Amino acid sequence: MIVDLEKLQAVANRLRAHSIRSTFPTRSGHPTSCMSAADLVAGLFFGVMRFDPNAPRHPLSDRFVLSKGHAAPLLYAAWAEAGAFPVEDLLSLREISSDLEGHPTPRLPFVDVATGSLGQGLSAGAGMAIGGKYLDKLDYRVYVLLGDGESAEGAVWEAAQFASYYRLDNLCAIVDVNRLGQSQATMYGHDIDVLIRRFEAFGWHAIGIDGHNFSEILKAYDEAASTKEKPTAIVARTFKGRGVSFLEDRDGQHGKALGSAEEVEKALAELDIDSSVTLPVRPFAARTVPAPEVGTPGPPGYEIGQEVATRRAYGNALARLGDVDSRVVALDGDTKNSTFSETFMEAHPDRFFEGFIAEQNIVGAGVGLGTRGKIPFVSTFAAFFARAYDQIRMAAISRANLKLSGSHAGVSIGADGPSQMGLEDLAMMRAVPGCRVLYPSDAVSAEACVKLAAETQGMFFIRTTRPDTPVIYPNDEAFEVGKAKVVRSRPEDRVTVVGAGVTLVEALKAHDLLAKEGISIRVVDLFSVKPADSEGLQQAAAETGGKVITVEDHYPEGGIGEAVQSALAGTGAGVRKLAVYELPRSGKPEELMARFGIDADHIASAVREMVG
Amino acid sequence: MIVDLEKLQAVANRLRAHSIRSTFPTRSGHPTSCMSAADLVAGLFFGVMRFDPNAPRHPLSDRFVLSKGHAAPLLYAAWAEAGAFPVEDLLSLREISSDLEGHPTPRLPFVDVATGSLGQGLSAGAGMAIGGKYLDKLDYRVYVLLGDGESAEGAVWEAAQFASYYRLDNLCAIVDVNRLGQSQATMYGHDIDVLIRRFEAFGWHAIGIDGHNFSEILKAYDEAASTKEKPTAIVARTFKGRGVSFLEDRDGQHGKALGSAEEVEKALAELDIDSSVTLPVRPFAARTVPAPEVGTPGPPGYEIGQEVATRRAYGNALARLGDVDSRVVALDGDTKNSTFSETFMEAHPDRFFEGFIAEQNIVGAGVGLGTRGKIPFVSTFAAFFARAYDQIRMAAISRANLKLSGSHAGVSIGADGPSQMGLEDLAMMRAVPGCRVLYPSDAVSAEACVKLAAETQGMFFIRTTRPDTPVIYPNDEAFEVGKAKVVRSRPEDRVTVVGAGVTLVEALKAHDLLAKEGISIRVVDLFSVKPADSEGLQQAAAETGGKVITVEDHYPEGGIGEAVQSALAGTGAGVRKLAVYELPRSGKPEELMARFGIDADHIASAVREMVG
Repeated sequence: MIVDLEKLQAVANRLRAHSIRSTFPTRSGHPTSCMSAADLVAGLFFGVMRFDPNAPRHPLSDRFVLSKGHAAPLLYAAWAEAGAFPVEDLLSLREISSDLEGHPTPRLPFVDVATGSLGQGLSAGAGMAIGGKYLDKLDYRVYVLLGDGESAEGAVWEAAQFASYYRLDNLCAIVDVNRLGQSQATMYGHDIDVLIRRFEAFGWHAIGIDGHNFSEILKAYDEAASTKEKPTAIVARTFKGRGVSFLEDRDGQHGKALGSAEEVEKALAELDIDSSVTLPVRPFAARTVPAPEVGTPGPPGYEIGQEVATRRAYGNALARLGDVDSRVVALDGDTKNSTFSETFMEAHPDRFFEGFIAEQNIVGAGVGLGTRGKIPFVSTFAAFFARAYDQIRMAAISRANLKLSGSHAGVSIGADGPSQMGLEDLAMMRAVPGCRVLYPSDAVSAEACVKLAAETQGMFFIRTTRPDTPVIYPNDEAFEVGKAKVVRSRPEDRVTVVGAGVTLVEALKAHDLLAKEGISIRVVDLFSVKPADSEGLQQAAAETGGKVITVEDHYPEGGIGEAVQSALAGTGAGVRKLAVYELPRSGKPEELMARFGIDADHIASAVREMVG
Repeated sequence: MIVDLEKLQAVANRLRAHSIRSTFPTRSGHPTSCMSAADLVAGLFFGVMRFDPNAPRHPLSDRFVLSKGHAAPLLYAAWAEAGAFPVEDLLSLREISSDLEGHPTPRLPFVDVATGSLGQGLSAGAGMAIGGKYLDKLDYRVYVLLGDGESAEGAVWEAAQFASYYRLDNLCAIVDVNRLGQSQATMYGHDIDVLIRRFEAFGWHAIGIDGHNFSEILKAYDEAASTKEKPTAIVARTFKGRGVSFLEDRDGQHGKALGSAEEVEKALAELDIDSSVTLPVRPFAARTVPAPEVGTPGPPGYEIGQEVATRRAYGNALARLGDVDSRVVALDGDTKNSTFSETFMEAHPDRFFEGFIAEQNIVGAGVGLGTRGKIPFVSTFAAFFARAYDQIRMAAISRANLKLSGSHAGVSIGADGPSQMGLEDLAMMRAVPGCRVLYPSDAVSAEACVKLAAETQGMFFIRTTRPDTPVIYPNDEAFEVGKAKVVRSRPEDRVTVVGAGVTLVEALKAHDLLAKEGISIRVVDLFSVKPADSEGLQQAAAETGGKVITVEDHYPEGGIGEAVQSALAGTGAGVRKLAVYELPRSGKPEELMARFGIDADHIASAVREMVG
C-alpha cells in the first residue's frame, strides 16, 4: 500500500494536538509521551493495520496493544481519527463520566487489555499472536507499542523469549525510545543499539529506525510483515514532546499537561495543524471464521473414599473439558508434572503452551488468549503466582477471562519448605476484584471447579493440594460459585468448623474424634472462598450457637478465617481462626500440620475449649 | 592460587555423594541438580572463595548465593566439607528437626537469603555487590549460582541490567546449564551461546565453559576476578546427574531421590569416593571494618493543620534519618519524584540507587543490601509492589531487614485510574509473615513510620497517600508499632470509626458533621495495620456499645476492615466495612471517594444507620 507521507505527517500532528488538548481540561496526563510515538502510531493506524474502527474486536482485525499505557491520549486520538468516535469526545479525557480513562481499560471497545502497569503488553500481545498463528490460524497481526523505560521490566524479556520460542512472526513490537523516563533519563538514553542487541539475543528480528521518519517507519512495518518464523522489534529513536520546541527532549516534562491556554495555543501553532487531510484505514479481507466446538463434559468417575490429589483431579478435569470444548487452552511454567496440566497436554498437545519458568508471561499470555475467545487455564504452584501478582491485578482491570490454578497450597506440601508453599495466595487472590476463589477438597469438587470456571466469564483462582485426599462427594454432586457445602450436620451440633482442601479432611477427622466424646460438630466445606456463602455460613453459625472455628492451610491474614469473619459480620458469631501463624519450615506434611496447629487434634482441642 | 585438580575432583565427587546420600532418608530432594553443579561449586569453595567457615557472615567474607535453591544439598555439602558443621549432619536433610531445609533459609548461618523461588538470587547478589563496591568499599566478591531453567525468569534480566549499569565487577554469575528443567528440557538445551549472547547484550562479560573441566572452571573464575567495570557471567555446559551413568543427562530425574539402598550404593560406587583427600579454604585478609554512624533524628517541624502529603513527609523523614545514620540506603523504580525518595537522593546521592522500571530487582537488591548491615528503604507506587510480591514473600522467608514504602494508595490518587491505585497492597502485605504494616495519616506519623522501621529489625511496609492532608499530631507525638491512636474520644461516643491515611481525614470530617447533629463518634487512627492494636480496638468498641465502622481506601478483602474484625474476634462487636467494593475508574479524588463510598458523607450515613 502506498501512503502519502505528507498526509501521514498531517495526521500525526493532529494526534499530537489531540494529546495536548485532551490533557488540558483536567491538567493531567502524559502529552509528551504521546508526541514521541505519534508518528509510529499514525503510520500504523493509517498505513499498515487492517481493521474496522466500528468493529474493533472482530476476529479478523489486526490487534494493537498500547503497552506504554500512559500514552492513552494518543491511543484515543488515533481511534477517534480512524472514526471509532467523535474527536470532540477526546476532551472528556480522565473525567469520571468518561470511559477515556487515564490509562486504557476495556471499558472501551477498542482496548483488549488494560495497561498502565508497564512491561505487560508484550505478553498479552504474544498470547493474541499464539491464538492467531496456532489456534484459529487467522492472519491478523499483533502490534505492541512499548516505551524504552518499560523495557527495563523483566516481564518484557519473558514475553520476548516466549514469542521467539513459538516463532510468532505475526507479532511486532515497536519500542518508542524517547530517552526520558518519569524521574530522569532512562538507562541507555538514545542508544537504540542496546535494545536492538537485546531483542536479537532473545531471538527476534530487530530493526533500528528514526521514529520520526515516515519512510523508515513504513519500511520497517513492511519488513516486519515479511519476516518469517521470528517476531520483529522496531526500535525507534524518538523525541519526547516531538514537534513543540518548548517540550521536545526536555527534562521534567513527564506526565505534565500544559499549564495555560496560552501554552496550548503556542504548542498547537507550532504543530501547524491541517484539519482538511483525511486518510482511510485499511480494511481486513472478509472470510468465514470457524465457530468453536463448545460443550460440557459429563460427571467424572471417582469412587467415594478413593485417594486422589485435587491437583491430579484438576488435570483430569481439564483434559476432559478439552475433549468437548475447543476454546480451552492451557499454559504452565515448567510445573506441568506437578500441577497436572500435563494431563491436558497429553490429551490436547496442540492447545498446550509450555511457558517455562516465567510466571509473569504465562499469566499475561493467558490474558491475551482470553481476548481472542479462548478459555485459558494457567497453572503453576500457588506460591509462584505471587510472581505474577501485578499481571493478575491488571487482568482484573482488563476484565479478563482467565482461569488460574495454583497447586501445592500450604504446609501440607511437606519437605520442600516455605519457598514452595502457597500460604498467602488466598489473601492475594481474594483481593482481586471480581475474581472467584474456589478451593476443592476432593477430586469431585476439583472437577466442579474446572467446569464452573470454564462456563463463567471472568477470573477464577482454583487452589489445589499436593497430597492425596479421599473423595467425599458423589460424582453427580452439584456445586455453585458462592455456595458452601455442609458435609456433617446434626441438630445437636455445638460448633461449626469451616475448612477447605486439606483442612476439610482434618475437620472430618476431628468430627469423628469428637463424636466419640459425645461432642457433635457441624462441618462446612468453604468450597467457594470468594464469594463466600454468607447465608449458608450464617445459618450454620446460628444453628451452632454462634460458635465458629475456621481452619486453613494459609497464613491468618486474608484467607478463610477472615473471609468467614466478613461473611458473619454483624451476626455476633464468634470466630476462632486456626491457621499457620508463623513462618513454617521443612518437614513431613502431617508433622507440619500438627506443628502449625491445623490438624484434626488441634481442631478437636479448639472445639473442646469453645464448648467447655 | 594453585589448586590440585585431582583433589578438586575428589572433593566434587564427595559433594555428589553427599547429595545422593542426604536426599535418601526422606526420599526427597534434587540430587541430580546438585550433581551438575558440583564441579563448579567445588572449584569455587576450595579454590577461589575467601571465607571463614566458622564466621560465614563476616563483613570481609566473599558471598555465595545459591539462586537455584533446589540444589540445597550441594550447598550444605560444600559448607560441611569446608568445616562449617559435621558432614554426618547432612543426613538430617529435610527433617522437621533440622535447619537443613528443602531449600536454603537463613536459619543457617551461611545462608544470607532464602532461595527456592527461582530467578531471585542475582538481585540479592547485586545488592550485596553494591554494598561492597559503593558503600563499605570492601573487596569481598559475590558469587551467584543460577540454573539454566531459572534464567527464563525476567527477574534475572532485571538484575543483570542493574549489575552492569552499576559496573559491579565484584559480582560473578555462574549458570549451570544442565539442559533439563523440571518437566522437560529447557528452551535452549545445551546451547550455551544463547545465554552468552544475552548476558553480553545486558552489558556483562560472559565466558562459556565446560562445567566439568576444572581447568576451564578455575580459569573462568580468574578471568571474572580480573575483569574490571563489568560483572562476569560464567555459562557452564553441564550434565544433570553427572558422574552416575543411570542418572546423567536423563529425562524424568528432576527432584527425585534414589529409590533404594542398592541404587545409592551403585551410584556411590560409580563416583569412586576418596575420603582421604582434604583441601583447605582460602581465608580473607584481615582488615579493620569501619563502624557505621548510627543515630536517630529529632522530631520534625510540622505545624498542626499544615497540608503535607504523607509521601512527601516520607521523603523528608528519610533524608533526615540519613543525616544521622549512615546505614540508611534507598532504592526506587523511576518514581522517586512521586514517592519522594528523591528528597533522600538529593541529601545523600551516594546512598541512593536508581533501579529504573524494574520493581522485582529493587526489592531483591534491597534484601541483599540488608544482609550487609544496611537499612534499605525501597519505594515505588503501592500498586507496583505487586510486581515484586514473590520477592517480598521470599524476603520474609529470608527474615530480611527490608523497608518498603508504597505511595499512591487507593482511589484518592484520582485521574490516573485503577492501574496506578494501590487497592490490594494491604491484603498483600498483611499476609507476609512478620511484616509490619504502617499507614500514616499525616506528616508527623509518616515521620514516625520511617523512624520505627529503621530502628526495628525486619520487614516493614509503609503506605503513603498522594494528596496533601492536614497535620493532626504534634511533632513530639509518640507512635508505636502495634498501637492505634484514638484521635477523637468522649464518654458519649456511640460508634467507633476506624480509618487510616486519607480515610482518617474523612472520619474526622464525619465526626464534625455528626457532632452538629448531636451524634458523638470515637475516631481511631489504625496507624499500625499489622500488628493491629487488639486491646485498643477492643476498648474503643466496648466503650461504643460494640458498634464499629471501618473505612479504607482499599478493596474490602484483607485490608483494614478484616484486620479490625480479626482484632475484635470473639468480642461480639459488629463491624461494618466501608471500602472500595468494585473496580474503580478515573476521576477527581473527591469524586472517586464519594462514588466508592469512603468519604465523610458515607461515613456519616453509616453512623446514622448504625445508631438509628
